[in-house]
Amino acid sequence: MRIEKLNENTKKNLLDDLLKRSPNNYGKFEASVQEILNAVKEKGDEAVFEYTEKFDGVRLDAEHLLVTEEEIAEAYEQVDDELIAIIRKALVNIRDYHQKQMQYSWFDSKPDGTILGQKVTALQRVGVYVPGGKAAYPSSVLMNIMPAKVAGVDEIIMVTPPGKDGKVTPTTLVAAKEAGADKVYKVGGAQAIAALAYGTESIPKVDKIVGPGNIYVALAKKAVYGFVSIDSIAGPSEILVLADETANPRFVAADLLSQAEHDEMASAILVTTSMELAEKVSAQTDAFVKELSRGEIIQKSLDNYGHILVAETMEDAIDAANSIASEHLEIVTANPFEVMTKIRNAGAIFIGEYSSEPLGDYFAGPNHVLPTNGTAKFFSPLSVDDFIKKSSIISYSRNALEKIHTDIEKFAEAEHLTAHANSIKVRFEK
Amino acid sequence: MRIEKLNENTKKNLLDDLLKRSPNNYGKFEASVQEILNAVKEKGDEAVFEYTEKFDGVRLDAEHLLVTEEEIAEAYEQVDDELIAIIRKALVNIRDYHQKQMQYSWFDSKPDGTILGQKVTALQRVGVYVPGGKAAYPSSVLMNIMPAKVAGVDEIIMVTPPGKDGKVTPTTLVAAKEAGADKVYKVGGAQAIAALAYGTESIPKVDKIVGPGNIYVALAKKAVYGFVSIDSIAGPSEILVLADETANPRFVAADLLSQAEHDEMASAILVTTSMELAEKVSAQTDAFVKELSRGEIIQKSLDNYGHILVAETMEDAIDAANSIASEHLEIVTANPFEVMTKIRNAGAIFIGEYSSEPLGDYFAGPNHVLPTNGTAKFFSPLSVDDFIKKSSIISYSRNALEKIHTDIEKFAEAEHLTAHANSIKVRFEK
Repeated sequence: MRIEKLNENTKKNLLDDLLKRSPNNYGKFEASVQEILNAVKEKGDEAVFEYTEKFDGVRLDAEHLLVTEEEIAEAYEQVDDELIAIIRKALVNIRDYHQKQMQYSWFDSKPDGTILGQKVTALQRVGVYVPGGKAAYPSSVLMNIMPAKVAGVDEIIMVTPPGKDGKVTPTTLVAAKEAGADKVYKVGGAQAIAALAYGTESIPKVDKIVGPGNIYVALAKKAVYGFVSIDSIAGPSEILVLADETANPRFVAADLLSQAEHDEMASAILVTTSMELAEKVSAQTDAFVKELSRGEIIQKSLDNYGHILVAETMEDAIDAANSIASEHLEIVTANPFEVMTKIRNAGAIFIGEYSSEPLGDYFAGPNHVLPTNGTAKFFSPLSVDDFIKKSSIISYSRNALEKIHTDIEKFAEAEHLTAHANSIKVRFEK
Repeated sequence: MRIEKLNENTKKNLLDDLLKRSPNNYGKFEASVQEILNAVKEKGDEAVFEYTEKFDGVRLDAEHLLVTEEEIAEAYEQVDDELIAIIRKALVNIRDYHQKQMQYSWFDSKPDGTILGQKVTALQRVGVYVPGGKAAYPSSVLMNIMPAKVAGVDEIIMVTPPGKDGKVTPTTLVAAKEAGADKVYKVGGAQAIAALAYGTESIPKVDKIVGPGNIYVALAKKAVYGFVSIDSIAGPSEILVLADETANPRFVAADLLSQAEHDEMASAILVTTSMELAEKVSAQTDAFVKELSRGEIIQKSLDNYGHILVAETMEDAIDAANSIASEHLEIVTANPFEVMTKIRNAGAIFIGEYSSEPLGDYFAGPNHVLPTNGTAKFFSPLSVDDFIKKSSIISYSRNALEKIHTDIEKFAEAEHLTAHANSIKVRFEK
């Protein structure tokens, strides 16, 4: 891996470089995505079947769109029992963590008869997109469904593209069943997003769509935003390791590569105060690349977006980490909790040398759906928050309103909203 | 106002009708908005000054873009002292309510050395858009700034279009100062959204943009979403009053009109179980329209989107209210709190006959920036939540990781992610 000195210049170049991967720069696909959205909105199921034939190479009909109990049973036969047992163990941790995120309705009452509050309600129906083929990750199914389940969503609809044989990847089905999806439809791509956003004869309209997908799926989600809600738009995977001279270079190198293997757009960055560590990690990544089965992807990803930055001070290193706002941040320093207090921007923070990133991908419990591409500056991990919404509660007694009624009337009149003022006035007219 | 029987048919027509007002249907303006966004992204201040000259009729320069302390002092001279006193009283309530929304970092530790948690961090810098001219509402300035202030945002940047004289509406400036805006720039429209999203020589890039605006502002916000965060896209104002025979028709009529006066796209709907109330409210609205200064707008709004629906049962009425998911919902029935328990979808719920909607617009404390156009099914009122974000915290001891390391390795291998497995393996190799 290349080693550079961290300074304002290398930081700026790196930030510009990373942003090139943003889905905000894929405008050229927008027209074809819009065409698919419009077709499904107008023609419903018919358009869904046409696009599925075109893109997935299989002709479905209304009878074969919904995955059956038999197909799920068949999937269980095909999946390794040991994996099913591991999925169940992971689900316990994921459920436990997300239950701690629960938010509750509250109110505050005063003796003059005023009640103010906030009512928390789960969304009624949500859609979970799950990619097919090579990108079918059962862990991702768990991570997208479980927070909705914990939040108390009434109905969780999963969509995933079928293979040419009209079937869904067995591990996807098993993970969906274990996590608690209510229905699974065999449809993928922008046509799946359109079906969830607008509803078709077979697929019910949802309130929110979550889950990762290719560029068509990402653009379709962005296009329907506002009509339904969506999760943040996922970009390529990222890891940033913040390390000092106490870090184990073999561990750091292995962790960097765990994200680099995702795809050629993935980014793996080490920011360290130690030139010695930088050099050892660089050598160790080279050694690992030769051993690992996905070495070719890893090498491309490192060539594209892999960096080792050597900082003068830990403050500079932390500042760079906050500017980059990485999806995953590992802190491997002598006092990692102290460093953590200075971190503003990161999707998930892994503290200490035994908190390797894949622990969070699969098992620890926190969600692995995290903000990418610098959006950790303003977005949060997928959570129970994504599947609830709030309504304000306002209840005033006559007495309480009377004390302030002229204030409200004057405020409304200052805004020239006389019907607003009138609605208060009529309550106190003689 | 027209009176109809509530049934599946009238409900569906009404829902279709309301959705016509959605900003999702204004695609024709997208190209010109995109042109403005691109120009500001490329040319910065220069483009900002050009568009300000074109749209606001005043040529500014870098010296006169930022509102000065002198201009703020001048604004205080021009605004009625009584209004300033009312603004201060309202701010106390708004601050109190939003402080109850605060969320805190938490962690959960287990004796085996695992720590899982969630770190809550305020956004660093946010932009607040405030419309100019006739739509300049000081109450809206308070409602957009205060939750950011309570959340602990470092820097709150306000943008608002200047008048032809290069000045900002005085009440806007006073409200901004009182609520705690750090800087106010004289720029509006899509060019203001672009400046906040990308940054210019004079205007710093922000993490999130909130605040209402015209269709250009709404489309610009939608276009930059993902690059920065935004609040939900505001549509026209809405009120739905759910009432039985115990409601006071004069109060109900006045409340309906308080929203109808906003603009011709605003919607005012009464759903009631009482035909007698329906008729009285209809007659009363006609009487009010003649008296009120904004009678012409009100009449158009009622003709367009005003409805009185008479339901067979309160259950049907509640079901319609949940389908419509109104921005503002008033419950004026014999047992309003019991009805409230059945409400799933509403931005703000006003309970009982003295909780008139304008009380919430100006004074009670809850935010008046609320989800419109049916989006209360999945969006929440503007709140402190909008100005914080979360990072997951994961810290495992060697001992804790060792107990599960083979599970993680197997899960990763099942997904063919061998570098993920490797990053766990290296920690336990002999």
